[in-house]
Amino acid sequence: MSDKKIKIGIAGYGNLGRGVEQSIAQNPDMSLEVVFTRRDPSSIDTQARVERMSEIEQYRDSIDVLILCGGSATDLPEQGPELAAMFHTVDSYDTHARIPEYYAAVDQAAQQSGHVSVISTGWDPGLFSLNRVLMEAILPEGSTYTFWGKGVSQGHSDAIRRVKGVKSGVQYTIPNEEAVDRIRRGERPELATKDKHVRECYITLEPGADEEAIRQEIVNMPHYFSDYDTTVHVISEEEMVRDHGAMPHGGIVIRGGVTGKGTSQVAEFNIKLDSNPEFTSSVLVAYARAVYRMALEGQVGAKTVYDVPIGYLSARSPEELRKELL
Amino acid sequence: MSDKKIKIGIAGYGNLGRGVEQSIAQNPDMSLEVVFTRRDPSSIDTQARVERMSEIEQYRDSIDVLILCGGSATDLPEQGPELAAMFHTVDSYDTHARIPEYYAAVDQAAQQSGHVSVISTGWDPGLFSLNRVLMEAILPEGSTYTFWGKGVSQGHSDAIRRVKGVKSGVQYTIPNEEAVDRIRRGERPELATKDKHVRECYITLEPGADEEAIRQEIVNMPHYFSDYDTTVHVISEEEMVRDHGAMPHGGIVIRGGVTGKGTSQVAEFNIKLDSNPEFTSSVLVAYARAVYRMALEGQVGAKTVYDVPIGYLSARSPEELRKELL
Repeated sequence: MSDKKIKIGIAGYGNLGRGVEQSIAQNPDMSLEVVFTRRDPSSIDTQARVERMSEIEQYRDSIDVLILCGGSATDLPEQGPELAAMFHTVDSYDTHARIPEYYAAVDQAAQQSGHVSVISTGWDPGLFSLNRVLMEAILPEGSTYTFWGKGVSQGHSDAIRRVKGVKSGVQYTIPNEEAVDRIRRGERPELATKDKHVRECYITLEPGADEEAIRQEIVNMPHYFSDYDTTVHVISEEEMVRDHGAMPHGGIVIRGGVTGKGTSQVAEFNIKLDSNPEFTSSVLVAYARAVYRMALEGQVGAKTVYDVPIGYLSARSPEELRKELL
Repeated sequence: MSDKKIKIGIAGYGNLGRGVEQSIAQNPDMSLEVVFTRRDPSSIDTQARVERMSEIEQYRDSIDVLILCGGSATDLPEQGPELAAMFHTVDSYDTHARIPEYYAAVDQAAQQSGHVSVISTGWDPGLFSLNRVLMEAILPEGSTYTFWGKGVSQGHSDAIRRVKGVKSGVQYTIPNEEAVDRIRRGERPELATKDKHVRECYITLEPGADEEAIRQEIVNMPHYFSDYDTTVHVISEEEMVRDHGAMPHGGIVIRGGVTGKGTSQVAEFNIKLDSNPEFTSSVLVAYARAVYRMALEGQVGAKTVYDVPIGYLSARSPEELRKELL
């Protein structure tokens, strides 16, 4: 490893930003130079240098790669193009339907300013997208299935908390094991999202609430639950705090295909995460290394996980990778 | 898709070569131009044009990518560099320990002649290697485990067939499910190859053979079986022919790691193949597409799966990949 560390900046210090800071500490070829925030810098609890987002332009020459840790709904659509005009960047923009438009905006800014920006990393989009393309390219005759979970769905958790008599609630989306097993065995069923997932709700009740009525209201809630196999568990406040405060997630990409004269072939990628944001942050940091290398090569414009050779993610040299891991 | 198809040549027509021919038929952007063989061309059962290997140089200008389907023991160490001097090539060289030396030889030939050659594709080396690097880069603190099987081991099958009284035999290497489950749960045990796999033998006996003595001789055979949990099944000739003629294989790459303050994260890639050679062939064909694109870009020299952006494997355009699969 060379002595020169890759100098990283973090734009935004929520769950993702904190995860990126922790991940950088696991990667000896990188150093965290500065964290940018829209809040009061003195309110941020970190050992790193913290600056106001409005000062970011002054860091143009002292940061190798800026990791964007804002949200996809409102932060990134603005920050992505704006910051790609000043820095080599990487982000985890995850609004699947609007990726082409986001790509175009970041690409224009990066092309004009001579920067390189890898957009939409993380695990979906990100590692799952990589595997969808890899598997489809190798098994062109087949079907790809993506399952999400076990993980908390914020929208569904909000929905159960709005039911009268529910005090607190968490909803987990869980892959339907029966569906997963069928595909693992080589079947290629037609499956809607509702066939692929089950929903599990954990709730606490207000005093005097009618448990059975609430259960019925939840499992029959249109759009959110009525199409799904839904289970409702009533638990104590103590259990809620103890068992349901974490941010686990995960999922499965699996493709069943045929080769030759109908020979069955199955490929699967899956992850089981005890912390969704910490894992996404770790993906961002690995792709920051790739951005650094692509920038050294003089590449410019917006890129996705499809454009990045996997070797660029590793701190090891190409020689070492070939010798040790090929 | 453009009208111009990628013109493929196949060098060597064993299981792999036949698999490549079948895979090309599944990929409408490719056409099989010619198969080269060291046997008598008229003895080869295919609809494709067949030529003698000795004529291969005449096809220098009419093939876009040559797929090398020879064996790693003796064919590829010679053919790899020799053919990289005439063609853009892709191969599945799989003698892990000698990859650096093979890489150097192919790289020299390809650099001198201005060709690009992707070596050591397939699934291990190949897709498993990709996943080992990807997972390690994302979870630098952790342990990666590779399991092979369920699949036939040729060396071990030969060993049981040499036991006196054994008429025919097939040995399957199978991942130890208990070990796999521990890692999936987030444990990171120290495991030797023998802890990760069990061995299952199916044999038929010569008339009058001593079944129990044979069983003991197999399970206690040093190096091959004595360190492993080995099961021996005595079956009929009919069952041997009916149930054990296929070439299934598969395996698992799995990494358990930690992020943040000891948060457990697990990532896994696994395949379940009803035909090992047909799957390897399909990987070769997808990488042939990448070779074609890298050659168009003017890249030269030997490359591995670590150097190839995943998008290059797909017949779809970058725009379509971003829109449909990201």
